[in-house]
This record gives sequence, structure tokens and C-alpha cells, in this order.
Amino acid sequence: MAIGDAVFGGDRRPIISGPCSVEPDYVRHAEAAAAAGADVLRGCVFKPRSGPDRFQGMGAEGIPLLGQARARTGLPIIAEPLDGDDVRLLRDHVDGFLIGARSMRNSRLLESVGRTGMPIILKRSFAATYAEWLGAADYIRATGNDDVILCERGIRTFVTETRNTLDVAAVPVLASRTDLPVIIDPSHAAGRREWVLPLALAGAAVGAAGIIVESHPVPEQSWTDSCQALSTPELRDLIEKVGRLNSLNELSST
Amino acid sequence: MAIGDAVFGGDRRPIISGPCSVEPDYVRHAEAAAAAGADVLRGCVFKPRSGPDRFQGMGAEGIPLLGQARARTGLPIIAEPLDGDDVRLLRDHVDGFLIGARSMRNSRLLESVGRTGMPIILKRSFAATYAEWLGAADYIRATGNDDVILCERGIRTFVTETRNTLDVAAVPVLASRTDLPVIIDPSHAAGRREWVLPLALAGAAVGAAGIIVESHPVPEQSWTDSCQALSTPELRDLIEKVGRLNSLNELSST
Amino acid sequence: MAIGDAVFGGDRRPIISGPCSVEPDYVRHAEAAAAAGADVLRGCVFKPRSGPDRFQGMGAEGIPLLGQARARTGLPIIAEPLDGDDVRLLRDHVDGFLIGARSMRNSRLLESVGRTGMPIILKRSFAATYAEWLGAADYIRATGNDDVILCERGIRTFVTETRNTLDVAAVPVLASRTDLPVIIDPSHAAGRREWVLPLALAGAAVGAAGIIVESHPVPEQSWTDSCQALSTPELRDLIEKVGRLNSLNELSST
Amino acid sequence: MAIGDAVFGGDRRPIISGPCSVEPDYVRHAEAAAAAGADVLRGCVFKPRSGPDRFQGMGAEGIPLLGQARARTGLPIIAEPLDGDDVRLLRDHVDGFLIGARSMRNSRLLESVGRTGMPIILKRSFAATYAEWLGAADYIRATGNDDVILCERGIRTFVTETRNTLDVAAVPVLASRTDLPVIIDPSHAAGRREWVLPLALAGAAVGAAGIIVESHPVPEQSWTDSCQALSTPELRDLIEKVGRLNSLNELSST
Repeated sequence: MAIGDAVFGGDRRPIISGPCSVEPDYVRHAEAAAAAGADVLRGCVFKPRSGPDRFQGMGAEGIPLLGQARARTGLPIIAEPLDGDDVRLLRDHVDGFLIGARSMRNSRLLESVGRTGMPIILKRSFAATYAEWLGAADYIRATGNDDVILCERGIRTFVTETRNTLDVAAVPVLASRTDLPVIIDPSHAAGRREWVLPLALAGAAVGAAGIIVESHPVPEQSWTDSCQALSTPELRDLIEKVGRLNSLNELSST
Repeated sequence: MAIGDAVFGGDRRPIISGPCSVEPDYVRHAEAAAAAGADVLRGCVFKPRSGPDRFQGMGAEGIPLLGQARARTGLPIIAEPLDGDDVRLLRDHVDGFLIGARSMRNSRLLESVGRTGMPIILKRSFAATYAEWLGAADYIRATGNDDVILCERGIRTFVTETRNTLDVAAVPVLASRTDLPVIIDPSHAAGRREWVLPLALAGAAVGAAGIIVESHPVPEQSWTDSCQALSTPELRDLIEKVGRLNSLNELSST
Repeated sequence: MAIGDAVFGGDRRPIISGPCSVEPDYVRHAEAAAAAGADVLRGCVFKPRSGPDRFQGMGAEGIPLLGQARARTGLPIIAEPLDGDDVRLLRDHVDGFLIGARSMRNSRLLESVGRTGMPIILKRSFAATYAEWLGAADYIRATGNDDVILCERGIRTFVTETRNTLDVAAVPVLASRTDLPVIIDPSHAAGRREWVLPLALAGAAVGAAGIIVESHPVPEQSWTDSCQALSTPELRDLIEKVGRLNSLNELSST
Repeated sequence: MAIGDAVFGGDRRPIISGPCSVEPDYVRHAEAAAAAGADVLRGCVFKPRSGPDRFQGMGAEGIPLLGQARARTGLPIIAEPLDGDDVRLLRDHVDGFLIGARSMRNSRLLESVGRTGMPIILKRSFAATYAEWLGAADYIRATGNDDVILCERGIRTFVTETRNTLDVAAVPVLASRTDLPVIIDPSHAAGRREWVLPLALAGAAVGAAGIIVESHPVPEQSWTDSCQALSTPELRDLIEKVGRLNSLNELSST
């Protein structure tokens, strides 16, 4: 399974990165992520938020930036749609779709992205069981599209220091239940940049097929999720260290 | 705030009932709920499910049954849409909308139902904080529609005997944070019919403004959620007992 | 099953009350609770705390106050031991024991209180399943002592507004699994005094056999748990309102 | 900080292993763990269980086996006490104490083991916050004993496939709050032997100072926790693979 040239489930773990949301300076942000070694760009112009007063993303006017970033970096790009209209707007400008945690249970959206035939990264919802998560994947697969990558991004527990609790066991448990690759999102699990690297390493060691991580040239100026974005040097460091675990890839196979 | 003649936040607690999903015999099911004393009918033709192989509801072909049920019982009716298209199909045939737990984080759908100007029952998502739940309500209110009724239906915890854990404290906590009425869904919290009545009474005693409860003339033949639907006599019993708590309505105000 | 004259599982629901911890003015506090209508006094001289720097209770020097309170009010009294030595110190001065949530999994302590043959209120631990809670009760019952009263005091969930999430469903679920009565502690569930009354009413309506609630003549001066203690007038109000639900006792039996 | 010669917080991660509970063949079990490369033996003769009908450990009659195992393997040994009497029985026969999840909130026991001055491994309770866990460590440290090793063994969440959810983030979060080393118990987190290795690797990669893992020469014949014990070859494999991560020790330091 691949997004552009980035193969998930192979010898190395692709890194998906970029800012939480597309901002006017997105092309420069994408170049920074590419220079740090990212394999796939995240370019989200529609943002699901917890209230209407928050920044909802640049919307359709951000879409041209996706093509520019792709052209400048040569990297594939993924974006998150919130409904079928977004899917139609985005499909000619991206290499794959990201379904966020808030949308995992939106069966109409799952069917809509599924029908594009493009690769889909499906994040686990806040309190989704493995069965519910696989059921959501089934909505996509029922359209004939098996290019689904599952993404563990932390579950909601009583712990408040981290934004969510990264359920690393999801990787080996799902390996026994599905043929779909599972990647890890340490950014939304940690919620704070200083904990992103160790969680990424835990994800790599447990056998995740890739990492999706938020980065921004000037994290504290990030329009959204500024607490958890890595700076460009931090991203480069993470990519280098995760890469050193690639050689230990066989570790987690018993 | 009212759905048809049923006032939420007044002297008595309206009971919303009917089968989990509209089945071909829906009109008869609605008549049974009405005969038992229900104030509002639930008539869901689109069903959000945890996988594509499960019954997804009768769909558009079930919509004519809603009008027939309304005509035969004289009761208002609510239905659950899954996207904007459903909202358009349903809006001339219902008196209000139900947003299910799976859709609470679907901001596009919230805006779509909001714009109808009709009353909206907004269920809390599986692991939604109070702030996230009110944020979802804000998406509706931002359209100018303040007719939102919040519905506590149980949260996901480590408890496995019940389907979810009914968070009765949501009622007094939210009373200090919002002017919106809060109702209780004991059916999805309990998951088994024998526990529905005590949870409904707990909800009434804690100050809920109404109850939404699944019922079916022959529960074990219900196409969905057959374990938790009340029989018609059980529904009548619940309505009578909840009604006895209405006189104690002032109990929970300190 | 009774503590002194207070019968649990009968026509009315006994109210256990008193300050969180015994303070030098305890006798006056006990008289206030008695005057408000409490049936049993709580008189905890040993306090399990979340760190060594917090007030650990008056200890053995508080024990004489228990007898004085009993003499002045004529009410039975319960206290919480933390180990076998405490049990020996307390047993001649109390009418029953309280095992707190922190001690539910302390099998040696359960055996020790069990062997006194006195009534035991066994609180559910923070994240105990029903099976684990009943297993703890079995440690007591294995000593030949069946006078165990289970106490639901809220479980730990992702909700942060309340101190814990009151699992009212514990009452009907356990009624189908055990002959032991279940009471409710709304104080530790709520964590704030304004939510104690509605949670107590929910507990009464769901069928709890009694209520244990913290009270203090001047709550804000309480040495421990000052946020959740009821004032004496608030306690009187709660007792009166819970009493009005006694007549509806049969409500929750289907 | 060290248990015998095993240093926690140094260049390599000590492995603590042995059967869940001491059985009559314990010396042979200990030899197998030692041969596989374990650094410290676990030798639990008192078992906290979820009910009185389960095997409660060999008790005092198992204690002589601890000395024999120590003599035969040359390895240090730790054991779990349930109360102060156990501490007195064990202290001359062990090199350190293990406080299990069920006992983390037992302040009297914490003080009792603390006063021995010996190293203490303090497991996190099922739903303990970081603050509560550190508060428990403070009960030990208040006796003047700072040789406390924290052990993350999984928290209780809604996930049912694994026995608990391993909270790997505990390692970096606690590193910012305390000078105490944190080790990982993948056995109780996984609950099934096939998931123990990946969780151990995740723990090593996230920066844990050591691993405690259950092993048994014939796991399926283990008297307790037979589902999660590793066989001797599996233990050897885990130790070898965790060791390969030692060279990457500096990975998780940013």
C-alpha cells in the first residue's frame, strides 16, 4: 500500500508531516518538512474543530497551495475532507485522504472517500473499540477500496497530562485481526512537543508501519495545535531516530 | 422549547419513544407507543451502524411511514439524518431532528440541521467532554437556531455489563453552564431492557427535562437493538412512574 | 442488615452522615448531623490520603470522641480502619466499619474487619469492575460475616468537572447478582456540594438502599473535603427530599 | 539505584523475571529465567487476588525457596508483601520489595516497606493519576528511603482485548516530574503472551529504565497468569531484542 512513492508495510516507515492546518505560508512549511526528510505532506484546509468560533481552516481558497507544495517538494500530499463536497473539491489536488478521529463514525463520508479509490488514512475515534474502528474501515472497503491505513492517535482516558493515551498495543492486536497497516500519530497523543519523540519511538518499536507528526517552522506561531507541533530541527531528529529503528524492523515479529 | 406540543423544561417530562429503527410495521409500532402515553415519536429511517453489513435503515422508502404515523397518532415525530441530503429528504416530514452520538462531531451536519430552524436533540458522543458537547451545540446555535435539547445517553467507561455508563451528573453540571434542557436516554445507557426503568427514574430524579426510550410491541423481533427495547406494557409502566416523579420536580432544585 | 437500628434494605433509606474526618469539635458536628435527621454517624479518625504531607486524621486520640458522639446522639457510628491494628483499636468504639475505595483491594484488611462480625460498608475502588467489587466482598464473607453493604461512590472516567462519575446502574446490575444491599455516596461522586443533592436523588430513585453523605456545620472550615461537605440545613433538606422518594420505593422494581 | 547488581537508570535496562507466583518447582523456574538472561528474580509467595477462592500464593512455606533460588542463580530477588507481617517475614530473604497495583494506595504498607531501607518497585494502581502514584512514592520516601522504582503496568480503559492499556507516555511525563526511574511491565498490560514482546520493545524505546516480565518454563502450567507468561525461549528472545535497543538508549533524550 502506498501514497505516492511512500510504501506502508515495507522495509522502512514513511513519515507524514506538515503543519496541523494549511496557512497562507503553507508552501514554505511544506518545503521545511520535505527538507527535514518527510515522505508525505499533510495539507489540511478543512479543520474539524470543537466549536464554531475557532479557525475552521482556509477552506477552498487553500486548495491551490496544495498543488504548489506538491510541485515544489515532489512529495505526495494528503488532506482531510469533512463531507462529500470536500471530497469532490479535494480529489484532483491530493494523493490520499485523511479521515480524522471526529469523522471515523461518519459512514457517508467513509463511503464518499472510499469511492475515490485513493488511499485513505483512517484515524481511530476518541473512544472507538478495535471492532468499531475496523467496522469504519469496512465502510470504505465495501466500496471496493482496500487502500486503508489505520492510524492510532490516542484514546481518551482519565489521564490529563497528555492530550490522549497512545494505545501502542493497537499495533500488535490489529496485526492479528486485519491485513491493513497501522501507523501512529504521536502528536495528538502527546499534545506537547517534548513528548512527541519518545511516543514516536515507542510506535516504531511496537511495529507501526509509519508515523504522522505535526511540524511547523515556527511552532509557537502555528494557527492550530501550536503546543504539539515539532520545529523543523526536531522533525529532522525524529526522522533520523525513527530511521535507526527501521533496521530493527524485525524486532517485533516473534 | 417544544417539539410539537411537547414542552421540554416545563412542569412535566415529555417521553419520546418508538422503535430503534423504522420497520415496515412502523405505523403500528407508533400507535403502540402513543397508546402507552408517549409524547413524541422517534422514527429513524437512516441508521448509523458500526459496519456496512448491518441493517442501515429503510432509507427514503420509509419516509412515507412517518407521515402516516403522525396522522394516526397526532404526535410529533423526530428522525435522525446522517448528512445534508438526509436533512433535505426528511425536513418536510418531521417535527424535529435527532443527532446521534456518532454524529455529534459532524460539524457540517450540525450546521445543516441548524439551518432548518427546527428543534434538534443533540446526543452526547461516546467520550465527549461537556465542553465538546456544548461546542457541538454551538455549531447549531451559530446558524441562529437555539432550539437545541441535549441528550445524555451514557459514556464509554471500563464497565462492560451495561452498554454505556449513564452520567447522571451531566444534568446538574450542565444546568450551571447552559440554558439548554438536558434529557436522558436510558436505553442506550442500559443496553438491556431490565435496567431501563431504574435508569429512567434516576434521570428523572436528577432533574432531566425528558426521556427518550426505545420501545417495540415485540421487542425481541425488533430489527435493531432488540435487547434494550421496552415492550408496550413496560413503556406504559415507565411513563406512569416517571410521571409520579414530575410532582417532585422541584426536588432537585436546591 | 442493620447498623444499630438503621436497617438497610427495608422501607426507608438510612442516611449516614457526619464530617469527612473527625476533628476536635467532632461531637458538635455529630450532634448537628443527628439534629438534621441522620441515622448513622461517620466518624473517621484514620484518613487514607494521596500523600504523606496531608492531614492523616486525628488517629487514636480521636477515638474517645466517637463514644462521646454516640452517647450524645444515641446514633450508631462507623469508622474506617487502614490496617488490622486500626481494627483492634476501633472495634469496641464503633457499630460498624467503613472500607474506603483505596482499601477495597486490601484483602488482609477485608479479612480483619470481616472477623469482627460487625457490619461492613465496602466502597467500590476507583476503577473496580463489579466482579472485583464482589470478589472483595467475598473476602469478608469468607470469614463468615455476611453483613456487607456495598457502596457506589463514583468511578474514574475522563470527566473532570465531577470528582468521579456516579455509576447509578451499579444498583440494578448488582441487584441481579448479589443479595447484598447497595448504597450511594453522592459526596465523593460530585466533589462539589451543589451537585450532591441531585446525585443523592438519582441514587434514591434508582433503588439504592441508603445514602452516605458528608456534612459539616461550617463546610468551608472542614479539615478535609471542604468542597463537598453539606451544611446542616443542606443535609436536612437532602434527608427530607430523599425521604419523599421512600414512598416511591417500589418504583424501581419492575 | 540498584537491586543487587542490577542498576536502574544506567546504560542498560535490567530485566526482572520469573513466574507470576512461587510454585513448589520455583527454584527450577528461577534457574530458567537466569539462564535466559534475567538480572533480577521475582519470587512472589503472597498473591493479592480478586477473590478468596483463588490461589493466594504458597505463603510462608514458599519463603525457603527464595533463598535456594538466590543461591543457585546468584541473582537478587524481589517479593511482594501484602501487609506489615509479610514485610517482616520476607525482609531477610529478599533484595527488594514489589508493591503491586492493588497495594499502591495502602499507605501503611508503603510505610512498612519504606522503613526496611530496601529498594521498592512501586506499581501504578489500575486508575491512578501520575500525582497519586507519586504521592504513594512519597509515603515511602517520607520514611527516608528514596530507593523507589516506579512501574507502569497498564491502566484500565474501555479496551478489552488487552488486560490493561500500557500508558507508555508515563515514562517521558514522569521524567519531567521526578528523579525516580520508571520501568515497564508488559505482561500485565498485554495479558496475552503474544503481545508481551512488542509492548516490551515499546517500553524500551520510550525510555523505560527496565522491564519486569513474567516467565515460566511451561507457561500453560503456570498456577497463575498462565496466559501471559513467556516461555524460556521467548524470554531469551525478549532480553536479546530489548538489549539491542540499549545501544539506542540515547534515542529518547531530545
